[in-house]
Amino acid sequence: MTPIVRRHLFGPGPTNPYPEATEGLARPLLGHLDPAFIAIMDETCDRLREAWGTTNARTLPLSATGSAGMEAAFVNTVTPGDVVVVAVNGLFGQRMCEVARRCGAEVIPVEHRWGTPVDPERVVAAHPSPRVVAAVHAETSTGVRSDIAALGAAVHAAGDALLVVDAVTSIGGLELRADDWGIDVGYAGTQKCLGVAPGLAPFTINDRAFARRVERPQSWYLDLGLLGGYVGEAGAKGGGRTYHHTAPVAMISSLHAGLGRVLDEGLDNVWARHAAAGQALQDGLEAMGLELFAEKGSRLPDLTTVKVPDGVDSAAVRRTMLERYDIEIGAGVGEFAGSVWRIGLMGPNARPDAVTLVLGALAEVLAR
Amino acid sequence: MTPIVRRHLFGPGPTNPYPEATEGLARPLLGHLDPAFIAIMDETCDRLREAWGTTNARTLPLSATGSAGMEAAFVNTVTPGDVVVVAVNGLFGQRMCEVARRCGAEVIPVEHRWGTPVDPERVVAAHPSPRVVAAVHAETSTGVRSDIAALGAAVHAAGDALLVVDAVTSIGGLELRADDWGIDVGYAGTQKCLGVAPGLAPFTINDRAFARRVERPQSWYLDLGLLGGYVGEAGAKGGGRTYHHTAPVAMISSLHAGLGRVLDEGLDNVWARHAAAGQALQDGLEAMGLELFAEKGSRLPDLTTVKVPDGVDSAAVRRTMLERYDIEIGAGVGEFAGSVWRIGLMGPNARPDAVTLVLGALAEVLAR
Repeated sequence: MTPIVRRHLFGPGPTNPYPEATEGLARPLLGHLDPAFIAIMDETCDRLREAWGTTNARTLPLSATGSAGMEAAFVNTVTPGDVVVVAVNGLFGQRMCEVARRCGAEVIPVEHRWGTPVDPERVVAAHPSPRVVAAVHAETSTGVRSDIAALGAAVHAAGDALLVVDAVTSIGGLELRADDWGIDVGYAGTQKCLGVAPGLAPFTINDRAFARRVERPQSWYLDLGLLGGYVGEAGAKGGGRTYHHTAPVAMISSLHAGLGRVLDEGLDNVWARHAAAGQALQDGLEAMGLELFAEKGSRLPDLTTVKVPDGVDSAAVRRTMLERYDIEIGAGVGEFAGSVWRIGLMGPNARPDAVTLVLGALAEVLAR
Repeated sequence: MTPIVRRHLFGPGPTNPYPEATEGLARPLLGHLDPAFIAIMDETCDRLREAWGTTNARTLPLSATGSAGMEAAFVNTVTPGDVVVVAVNGLFGQRMCEVARRCGAEVIPVEHRWGTPVDPERVVAAHPSPRVVAAVHAETSTGVRSDIAALGAAVHAAGDALLVVDAVTSIGGLELRADDWGIDVGYAGTQKCLGVAPGLAPFTINDRAFARRVERPQSWYLDLGLLGGYVGEAGAKGGGRTYHHTAPVAMISSLHAGLGRVLDEGLDNVWARHAAAGQALQDGLEAMGLELFAEKGSRLPDLTTVKVPDGVDSAAVRRTMLERYDIEIGAGVGEFAGSVWRIGLMGPNARPDAVTLVLGALAEVLAR
């Protein structure tokens, strides 16, 4: 029998899950219409509202990974010919452009140098009256955090565009306040700071955006008008629960449990723990003489990008980290594939032991 | 602390998972690009080929539930104006029509009385040269099995339409031979006879259909041209593996384990076990004086539909089954919601103990 492999997942995600999340996966399976499961689904949506910082009735885990959350955001808000302004400062901004184009949007990308945050002024200046403005809160490809509060204020001061935000690598790890910041539509993933396996897309949409949604989106699977009934949406459907598709019961039970762990610790404490771990890692890398990639002042705590030193074989280092220490770290993306590493300390890995381990192992490998 | 609920899942799905599948869910999580996970993904695709009865290179678990498999089938084969003939003999045929229409198809539904199988002659006569003909192998809403071998022969004799088949409630439970039967595109689910939690859509597409696929489908998430690289498709992409989205690692490990169990038992044996359990259940129900809903000769072994006796409160019986015996059985669908029950014996539940338990409990409840 093949031995079971266990890894320290210090890459850009997935992270190692919280033990509670793993336990939730393996519980006896429930039917998707069982009252016992419906109670779990309802509570999961409540917990997601807390994690998002929202009171949006329409907050739910979509039954696919974070990238499907992106698709859901656009298919439900964009029809052919609509103008969509996308702040692009990394791979996921680029992907937003592609997904919006497949909805027939006229996309206006606002390009930023990779490693820098989104500039709200440039984004707002790109078009006088777009239907949607979209940006990534935490760019997984570059390790950069953008100021969504400032972007939201600028977008809403300029007109009535909907603000779509990617919070895949921020939810559960750093401050996220969807309502206060003016996020109209948000999507995320489970496999980063929430400390749950990949497979669901936590999603939220406010009343304003829902009222302006596409009536019959090109995607049936991601049609939010149908999905409201699926989660037993209280407001619009009178509390009735209708069958849409079979909920991924085990994954939702796991998300329920992982969110319980995060909220028991308290969001402020969780954010502080991620901030402390990220700072310790970044300080340690600089103390080793390495140079960070993301611009100072806009570095993510949960995902650190560091330049590969000249003359070092990036892939060989990652391979040794994996084979000798069972540690996964990530390569860079796009033109930085071979010149940047991405080190994530997310969820249960945002802890001093993980900082010490990854710094120690990296120092040993670089000294070999 | 709330007690953990455990149920006998004898409804239309999900079923209780095979123990191996639950164990696979809870294994230490791997990164989605880890060589150890890639080996599991490759082997999962191999195992899916066996379960489908195909040698199609493009056979993979899509990262969403079975309904997304349906959407993937149409977005990758249909462009606006294409004619799609759909054999409708239940809810899932109806859903195919809706999903195809959202791709801009001109849909020709061929309606059959619910409870009866698809008639290949009527389907083929509906249009001289459709782009796609679609049908459901095992209609979950009615408990009916259709003869896909006959349909495939008729469709391919009549022209060059692609045959799309829904095998959600047949894969892993009854004979399924995608290649021999002329299935060009097939999708399924994990939560029925494969005995794995819901969350993935086993999918297969042959070279003929792939060559005629939509070049840039309206869905990015379900774009098979991009997903080939994601699973490291050997043929078309030269074996390279490219990042598309983060694979739902835990669910795929679970599917890998569940498929291992099924193939170790042997597909012929698994099919025989489902057939025996279904026959015993149907015989037992008739011996109790109940009437089966699906037409004789076309009854699914894994999902039995039975008429609610006159004067019996269908929902009250289901509630008592659940509350007193922890047994889930399903209601009917559509106009049969209150007049039919659906009893599934799938995966590990296709066994004599499950037959005895559900018959015994139902007899007790009806006698109360």
